[in-house]
Amino acid sequence: MIGASLAEQSTRDGFLRSALTANGRGLALPDFFSWFEAQRAAQPMKVQRVPLASLDGWQIDGTPLRLAHRSGKFFSIEGIRVVTDFGAVRGWDQPIINQKEIGVLGIITRLIGGVRHFLMQAKVEPGNIDGVQLSPTVQATRSNFTRVHGGAGQPYLEYFVSPGRARVLVDQLQGEQGSRFLRKRNRNMIVEVDDGVPLDDRFCWLTLGQIKRLLECDNIVNMDVRTILACLPLVDSDAFPFADGDEMEDLAGRAAVAPVHGFARELLRSLVNRRAALHTTTELLHWLTGLRVRYTLDLAPQPLDALRGWTMTADEVSHDSGLYFSVIGVDVDAPGREVAHWQQVLLEHGGFGLNGFVMKRVNGVLHFLVRACMYPGNHELFELGSTVSRSNADVYFGKPNAPRFLDLFHEPPAEWVRYDAVQSEEGGRFFHYQNRYTLLELPEDVQIEEPESHRWMTLRQVQNFVRHGYFNIEGRNLLACLDLSAREDSHGAV
Amino acid sequence: MIGASLAEQSTRDGFLRSALTANGRGLALPDFFSWFEAQRAAQPMKVQRVPLASLDGWQIDGTPLRLAHRSGKFFSIEGIRVVTDFGAVRGWDQPIINQKEIGVLGIITRLIGGVRHFLMQAKVEPGNIDGVQLSPTVQATRSNFTRVHGGAGQPYLEYFVSPGRARVLVDQLQGEQGSRFLRKRNRNMIVEVDDGVPLDDRFCWLTLGQIKRLLECDNIVNMDVRTILACLPLVDSDAFPFADGDEMEDLAGRAAVAPVHGFARELLRSLVNRRAALHTTTELLHWLTGLRVRYTLDLAPQPLDALRGWTMTADEVSHDSGLYFSVIGVDVDAPGREVAHWQQVLLEHGGFGLNGFVMKRVNGVLHFLVRACMYPGNHELFELGSTVSRSNADVYFGKPNAPRFLDLFHEPPAEWVRYDAVQSEEGGRFFHYQNRYTLLELPEDVQIEEPESHRWMTLRQVQNFVRHGYFNIEGRNLLACLDLSAREDSHGAV
Repeated sequence: MIGASLAEQSTRDGFLRSALTANGRGLALPDFFSWFEAQRAAQPMKVQRVPLASLDGWQIDGTPLRLAHRSGKFFSIEGIRVVTDFGAVRGWDQPIINQKEIGVLGIITRLIGGVRHFLMQAKVEPGNIDGVQLSPTVQATRSNFTRVHGGAGQPYLEYFVSPGRARVLVDQLQGEQGSRFLRKRNRNMIVEVDDGVPLDDRFCWLTLGQIKRLLECDNIVNMDVRTILACLPLVDSDAFPFADGDEMEDLAGRAAVAPVHGFARELLRSLVNRRAALHTTTELLHWLTGLRVRYTLDLAPQPLDALRGWTMTADEVSHDSGLYFSVIGVDVDAPGREVAHWQQVLLEHGGFGLNGFVMKRVNGVLHFLVRACMYPGNHELFELGSTVSRSNADVYFGKPNAPRFLDLFHEPPAEWVRYDAVQSEEGGRFFHYQNRYTLLELPEDVQIEEPESHRWMTLRQVQNFVRHGYFNIEGRNLLACLDLSAREDSHGAV
Repeated sequence: MIGASLAEQSTRDGFLRSALTANGRGLALPDFFSWFEAQRAAQPMKVQRVPLASLDGWQIDGTPLRLAHRSGKFFSIEGIRVVTDFGAVRGWDQPIINQKEIGVLGIITRLIGGVRHFLMQAKVEPGNIDGVQLSPTVQATRSNFTRVHGGAGQPYLEYFVSPGRARVLVDQLQGEQGSRFLRKRNRNMIVEVDDGVPLDDRFCWLTLGQIKRLLECDNIVNMDVRTILACLPLVDSDAFPFADGDEMEDLAGRAAVAPVHGFARELLRSLVNRRAALHTTTELLHWLTGLRVRYTLDLAPQPLDALRGWTMTADEVSHDSGLYFSVIGVDVDAPGREVAHWQQVLLEHGGFGLNGFVMKRVNGVLHFLVRACMYPGNHELFELGSTVSRSNADVYFGKPNAPRFLDLFHEPPAEWVRYDAVQSEEGGRFFHYQNRYTLLELPEDVQIEEPESHRWMTLRQVQNFVRHGYFNIEGRNLLACLDLSAREDSHGAV
């Protein structure tokens, strides 16, 4: 064996120890909730519907007709006609968000008492369900840097944009919802500092274990935290190439503050074991390349008021079925924000979506059933995602046109459920966009055939694909809910 | 240590043994040259210039004006205006090839007498320097599948497109020249068969070592072979995570048919050593993400007859400086081909380009100085490439506007040169497009500062980035010339 053991490695980089530590020195969870409630009260925001046609600062014009900010900045809502030869539905029209610029989603991390902590922010957005959500240290659009809306500078932004201010642990371009955004990507970053940074009231330090506890609650941890945490290398395969059963035991005994067992142990085995994978990476790339070559997707611009199946009024743009989403306008009063009043466009979502992974032990090691997803706003024709991801999931349960594997998530046996919570998507663009996030571990004897669109992968393979930008935000954000600190009795422990 | 040694691994997958085997059982090299000359005689092709305006099957029209095949298939030549805030030249106009469809470049491989062989083809293209070149088993555009030009089916194509006909060892989408093609990608494949396949006169079996010998000659191995071979995992890091010095010795003693030493040994160390890298993969991704976020590139369509700096006549489109390339028409007579006569567009290149890698031992292990390249037709804003890549290199040697590191390649000391040959680019699109391919290993005491555009990487890191599509064709095709079978006396051995 070469160099450090897995246990030593995990101590050195601190990620794994942080993941296993539910109680950090930053804030105990009861204190967290007091602080969070205080922030909810301190950051009031009043959001009211305004007709699209009378939205201050926005205009509906152009050829083809679209809805855009008068400054040419922020984003626009455009119509597209989609034609594809893949999947059950071969063509549709829809509005889509066009936001070309790349923003920064960043978290500052620091060792406190030998345990890695993350600097989190309580932040309110107009589309949030219940006021403030736990947000990254920084959420900055390029408009923030260039000060389009004339507000004060964002605190901590310099740690992410000024070279040398912090050590970079994660820096990846990752895509956002390809069903809602046209090729939108953000820069996902985690940077490390040695010393304390000035701590504003709206910020607090939490361990990874604490954040995972909070992910068990509905709608507390925002979308941007999830996408960043999904990029975090729990076991860095560059620095630490492999581990076997014996080292797993080491890990529990030496690095972890609590024994790892149950599902968390299955996750760790799936991260470190490199020989039990059902498919080699070569086979997985062959599968994905085949899909990317075999199918086509064509987008054509369409006027926003002439989308088939959609109706545009002075108030909103909505689907005639009542499903999917509506484009609405809101007036926002936010005394605590950089800019205290504005009006903007949001995509409103009724009902609940489902974002679910099916997992199962294959060759004795936990595998994830990964789906190749084609969405009109994808950067690549096919990207990897969770087993099922569908808005208005309840409409499809048990129906002949239900997406593959959806029905496994309809009232599954309790002993299959490894994670189940409602999470909401970015409140700066989406109004009440809620998805039920569910992780199911099926018994080994349940047979699942892999259709053309799905392949089993170990967590190690998944993590490597995430790093190189293959995974979509639905897949990444569900992976962020995987919890190495979960214990048999964890639900009663907080 | 777990599982098989590097030596056993290399025997099992056969790549390394093939790389180390200059004489296979397929064809000895003297026999190869006899066969190759016979093929040159058997596949005559007559290529004559024809004015663009009178090219059969092609038309110049549309808004903006472009040159395209009347069928709407094959490819078109379009004008673009490029504006960027990166690099010394911030804007220019140029013609570019628009060919949306993805083709297959594929090689069949098979163990013969325990040594892996590759099924190569002698194939003539109108833009080739000297008739036939050594080509992959299959070079098929989507037009080939769908039979646009009405020719006979390609032999062996079914091994690449029919599931189950062969085991897939490599299957990756890889880009082509971003300075000449608009977002063109091809599917690069290597597939394995167990039994013999019927052997047409135009085909022969060669080991990797033999192909590397042929790459020491000018203009014999075509571009498509190089791009495929660059994707070949010499040491599969999935299956075989690491090796140390001792195992390297093992390798020479047990798997290799000849001892590995000199530069080949340096290459192997750079492939298997995972701890001596100057930068971690995290640091390299941070560097690349920073570039992709910091700079912009905008393309706008321009009429082909109104490109600044270019002149369009009935004959051709050419740059006023005489540099870069010209768009020309040719008439082709090829009795041995599927279609015996046609006319087509080619990009004609005068002079020589340079494609060079600077290498150096850093931390005791060979590193490659990799450049982040922005070309207008890139799929990603920045892709990775060789240290220097420039057409008309001789014009720039010693000039103030020479690209960074170019002058290192101007009459370098002989003891630095690890590879030096003239290779030509795809003769189906380019007429006499020759580049001098050079690998230089600088002494350890030569100091090289990394500019914003360049980073040192080990061969292991390079290979991993190639696999996930980060490397451009200039970088990949030069990497394909790296030769594990090279020995001190190799130049006299053939």
